[in-house]
Amino acid sequence: MTSFASDNYAGVPREVLDALAAANTGHAPSYGDDDWTARADEAFRAHFGAQARPWYVTTGTAANVLALKAVCRPWESVITPATSHLNVDECGAPEHLGGLKLITVPTSDGKLMPAEVVGRLGRLGDQHAVQPRVVSVAQSTELGTVYGVDELRGLAEVAHEHGLLLHVDGARLANAAAGLDVGLGAITTQAGVDLLSFGGTKAGLLGAEAVVFLRDGLGEGFAYLRKQHAQLVSKMRFPAAQLEALLATDLWRRAAEHANAMARRLAAGVAGVEDVRLTQPVQANAVFAILPREATQRLQCDHRFYVWDEDTGEVRWMCSWDTREEEVDAFVADVRAILSAPAS
Amino acid sequence: MTSFASDNYAGVPREVLDALAAANTGHAPSYGDDDWTARADEAFRAHFGAQARPWYVTTGTAANVLALKAVCRPWESVITPATSHLNVDECGAPEHLGGLKLITVPTSDGKLMPAEVVGRLGRLGDQHAVQPRVVSVAQSTELGTVYGVDELRGLAEVAHEHGLLLHVDGARLANAAAGLDVGLGAITTQAGVDLLSFGGTKAGLLGAEAVVFLRDGLGEGFAYLRKQHAQLVSKMRFPAAQLEALLATDLWRRAAEHANAMARRLAAGVAGVEDVRLTQPVQANAVFAILPREATQRLQCDHRFYVWDEDTGEVRWMCSWDTREEEVDAFVADVRAILSAPAS
Amino acid sequence: MTSFASDNYAGVPREVLDALAAANTGHAPSYGDDDWTARADEAFRAHFGAQARPWYVTTGTAANVLALKAVCRPWESVITPATSHLNVDECGAPEHLGGLKLITVPTSDGKLMPAEVVGRLGRLGDQHAVQPRVVSVAQSTELGTVYGVDELRGLAEVAHEHGLLLHVDGARLANAAAGLDVGLGAITTQAGVDLLSFGGTKAGLLGAEAVVFLRDGLGEGFAYLRKQHAQLVSKMRFPAAQLEALLATDLWRRAAEHANAMARRLAAGVAGVEDVRLTQPVQANAVFAILPREATQRLQCDHRFYVWDEDTGEVRWMCSWDTREEEVDAFVADVRAILSAPAS
Amino acid sequence: MTSFASDNYAGVPREVLDALAAANTGHAPSYGDDDWTARADEAFRAHFGAQARPWYVTTGTAANVLALKAVCRPWESVITPATSHLNVDECGAPEHLGGLKLITVPTSDGKLMPAEVVGRLGRLGDQHAVQPRVVSVAQSTELGTVYGVDELRGLAEVAHEHGLLLHVDGARLANAAAGLDVGLGAITTQAGVDLLSFGGTKAGLLGAEAVVFLRDGLGEGFAYLRKQHAQLVSKMRFPAAQLEALLATDLWRRAAEHANAMARRLAAGVAGVEDVRLTQPVQANAVFAILPREATQRLQCDHRFYVWDEDTGEVRWMCSWDTREEEVDAFVADVRAILSAPAS
Repeated sequence: MTSFASDNYAGVPREVLDALAAANTGHAPSYGDDDWTARADEAFRAHFGAQARPWYVTTGTAANVLALKAVCRPWESVITPATSHLNVDECGAPEHLGGLKLITVPTSDGKLMPAEVVGRLGRLGDQHAVQPRVVSVAQSTELGTVYGVDELRGLAEVAHEHGLLLHVDGARLANAAAGLDVGLGAITTQAGVDLLSFGGTKAGLLGAEAVVFLRDGLGEGFAYLRKQHAQLVSKMRFPAAQLEALLATDLWRRAAEHANAMARRLAAGVAGVEDVRLTQPVQANAVFAILPREATQRLQCDHRFYVWDEDTGEVRWMCSWDTREEEVDAFVADVRAILSAPAS
Repeated sequence: MTSFASDNYAGVPREVLDALAAANTGHAPSYGDDDWTARADEAFRAHFGAQARPWYVTTGTAANVLALKAVCRPWESVITPATSHLNVDECGAPEHLGGLKLITVPTSDGKLMPAEVVGRLGRLGDQHAVQPRVVSVAQSTELGTVYGVDELRGLAEVAHEHGLLLHVDGARLANAAAGLDVGLGAITTQAGVDLLSFGGTKAGLLGAEAVVFLRDGLGEGFAYLRKQHAQLVSKMRFPAAQLEALLATDLWRRAAEHANAMARRLAAGVAGVEDVRLTQPVQANAVFAILPREATQRLQCDHRFYVWDEDTGEVRWMCSWDTREEEVDAFVADVRAILSAPAS
Repeated sequence: MTSFASDNYAGVPREVLDALAAANTGHAPSYGDDDWTARADEAFRAHFGAQARPWYVTTGTAANVLALKAVCRPWESVITPATSHLNVDECGAPEHLGGLKLITVPTSDGKLMPAEVVGRLGRLGDQHAVQPRVVSVAQSTELGTVYGVDELRGLAEVAHEHGLLLHVDGARLANAAAGLDVGLGAITTQAGVDLLSFGGTKAGLLGAEAVVFLRDGLGEGFAYLRKQHAQLVSKMRFPAAQLEALLATDLWRRAAEHANAMARRLAAGVAGVEDVRLTQPVQANAVFAILPREATQRLQCDHRFYVWDEDTGEVRWMCSWDTREEEVDAFVADVRAILSAPAS
Repeated sequence: MTSFASDNYAGVPREVLDALAAANTGHAPSYGDDDWTARADEAFRAHFGAQARPWYVTTGTAANVLALKAVCRPWESVITPATSHLNVDECGAPEHLGGLKLITVPTSDGKLMPAEVVGRLGRLGDQHAVQPRVVSVAQSTELGTVYGVDELRGLAEVAHEHGLLLHVDGARLANAAAGLDVGLGAITTQAGVDLLSFGGTKAGLLGAEAVVFLRDGLGEGFAYLRKQHAQLVSKMRFPAAQLEALLATDLWRRAAEHANAMARRLAAGVAGVEDVRLTQPVQANAVFAILPREATQRLQCDHRFYVWDEDTGEVRWMCSWDTREEEVDAFVADVRAILSAPAS
């Protein structure tokens, strides 16, 4: 059975296990006071600038919520697309764990536009209303779309103009950078992003994520916040070694480019099939499509993937660092066979 | 340099890396719906009984706080020794993340006695006071002492009699079981313990912990609580594979017995040295001692360990699964040399 | 200057001050163990049924948030109209203080319909999503509309069918009951409502609100929750005496009927004026209208009221227990004069 | 039956009801934008200095918890005597509502000394430990004792030296000032106190408390914090009018002096009775004493008061603004009669 269910169904590249084995050498200070952490920090600074300050955490939910909580006071809020993972897939963590209200904006493609930010700022200074403090967008988005560098810059400008910060949920930042063929810094620090959740797990790690403050003056006291929110790993060298393996070589880019290429191959393969409509541009490693429900059901006998929208029948096909061309081709063949479309 | 700083300075046994490599095979469903998780669950049930329900989390702080939050309403409190990790080493996580007040009890050896529990129940039903709901003790304790089975049973009885639950912080449960030469179930489920934080990391894993509900009817909705508190790992097979490696073989016992034996060897080695006073019985893998400050400072030139109490000069020497006899012997020799005590 | 700004701009009827004076007699037990509280409780039971259990709090925000928090676990959510006070005017209290996520539904008239509730239940059982537990509606709504008894019953049925509860934000419950010409119980307990925030302040008190659990089995431990959330008043006889004055006589109905009548008089007075469009039916004590911005600005020189929607120019004219006919008539005359509409 | 149970069993002086009646005049802007609030603010500034910024809340719990939450980040803690109301009588509000850990210090007389503060600062900078941010003491204390001006200054100095703030729980600040025969400012602003919970209710109001920031730069955003924590009263003129009545005249001092005098009269009356031992100096309006349990039980047939410590038999006799000399004398006579001590 092939799986296009999620990039977190994948395991890890050999390099990652090797890095763990290499780090497993005698005693090392715990809680981040070790050499692997120092080198991972250095790798982050190489990508995001000398001022960048990374903090390693264990899950994407933790990275998102702690990043936001670190820069918001209790009454401050976060403007985010209604489709954001933050809003729909964190089981209320921003609200309960972060104590933060989300101001959600409907979008067609998962991307927030500057004018929509401005439209949510009407009650600044009104004690009855939460006060927007952060604009949070995912790059790539939950719909597989990618903000261009100028689009991010536009968001950063409008945010900063009104005293807000720009946060990027980069669970799939590597895919976005690979999709745009730019570096990780180009779509974050250099575009005006203030703080980042960097995703290692979907990029190919066993499990390692980071909160990265990209500007000086942000994240004061974060060491305490991380510990208090149960995210301070004791044997820190192990997540750090994973992140070093990912970022200090070109592993992050190779893995992401491959995943993206597989998504494009899949999209190209089903293009022109009459009953398949791609609903979003394929800019990272996901393909969104609407096809007849019967076809979906038949496909799901041999292939794992999720129905994204029960109402419209939209499905998500997600590729990962280890998706093989043959898997894609077999899947495409089945799509075409089921929908009686001869191979293109 | 030898290290007796902490059992979380150690790496992991070869078996653990092997288990990760074995689990790194193609795609597997994420979030715990995989075979490794099923087998780890089975290993937990083999130790803790068929009714036991384990949930894997990433840190000991998470295990402790989520276990307690799962069974307490906002106004309910936790009775715990003043020296507990929960009270002094979680950066306020029980209070901020759990929303729970701790009722702390001074002890001389880190162990709480049933009568001290009863003494904290005087305001049941008074709306101005938090209402005790859980008794939480560490096994082994933060002072390296171990509750006997009967002592635990006594705590469970007094807790249940008053409608409270008994929680065990088992960050070093394996060491306690090895120290008593009993199984893990004997000092938990069979002794009347209701819920458990099981520690995998100090026992020899890269990083995997568990909340285990030992009785039916506890922990309803815990899947949501875990996700909401940023503790739902996506590639669950990897922590699960580690826990399986630890618990489905005798690795947990071998590792713990070794660590304990090293602590006893160290204690025996310094016994009789005039200026070294052991402050606690050595029942698990830690040795607590008071020695002259000058001696401590000289020892710390070549050996890593913590001063536990700045006021008294008490130090902690912690052994782990990988502490070697030669390290212990070299350390003992230095202690004796510095304090001019001929080898015994 | 006349004021149609808010019903909380009004003072209190003479009866309320008299009740305070009458309660100011020597010593009385604090925290609710007094005769006034017992009589206020009795008045609540007379309206809402023998099983009803009222708890007095100090603000409407407290009543709403504590009612919801009392019946929700951390991962449970509340379905509510996007326009609800809960969502837009509590400065994030449901999220930060309650720890609860709101699932908001756009409406045209502030009223939620049963089908819209069902549409938000698609992810029951999915650990990544908050789990709906309560449907919360305001009666009368923030747009001055009123649910009919059958509409409430429909909401209660759909809620109960799916294991949810129905909460009513009754900051203006008296106005709704008066508007429908029914009792307070008819639109709460008898319609299937499970829990209620009862508003005394806008009904004519200095400041007294209540959380009322309308069914057995709800609100266990609420005494602790109230105290812990800083809502346990020590000299409870004083808010209790106010609530008794309101509910044990027909004061609540007289006050609400008058406010409603003034709103109807105002609406009738501006009816037919070409440039004034009423945007909502006038079913309680509020009138919503769109008129030219210039007219609004000129009116605001002599009359206090709020622009409700900056984008559309919609305004809110709110009447209260003490609004006088002459005030309404003077205001109407000014509207007509400014818009050059001869008196009808 | 006479009552020495609590100063919150008392009603209110005539002046307070008069102030409410005077404030009940037509419409006034809500939420604090009214003349009474402006005048109450002015009265606070007259006592506490031109820089003082008061915020009115509804309960003492709210005043304490919001004051502390306003100046602490999530990982910051509060050093306070173990006997403090904050620690034992707020049902866990500091922890659950404030998210703050309390570091408690045992005392014999309810008073914290500077050296004890220093003793709790040993883990500054350690990410595993909460970081002390505030020293919180009650004035007068829960044991009826009063800090001298120099004692407060000593606490302020040690706090400031280590970057901490000094908070005073002034539920009975008026009694302390009266007891020392100084102004309210002398034991707060002028002594170096940074922030204050000012108690109106026990001083003679129906229910009105304040958080007062005594230094510039504290309490930014407090308007939002108050609203979000359900403490923004809509008809603010009514609590404001009460506070104005208390502070803009000498009502606060008259009321407190009377209560204190009654406590001294009571203490003097039982002095010399063999079986009555006063356990604390009588410096405000409370008398603490140990007497035989049988005597306590007989006294409680005709007089209301609390047993403070079940273990020792210590009782608390609390006087209030309205305690009458005859009540005290009758009570003293009963004490002497029961213990067979002839009138002195």
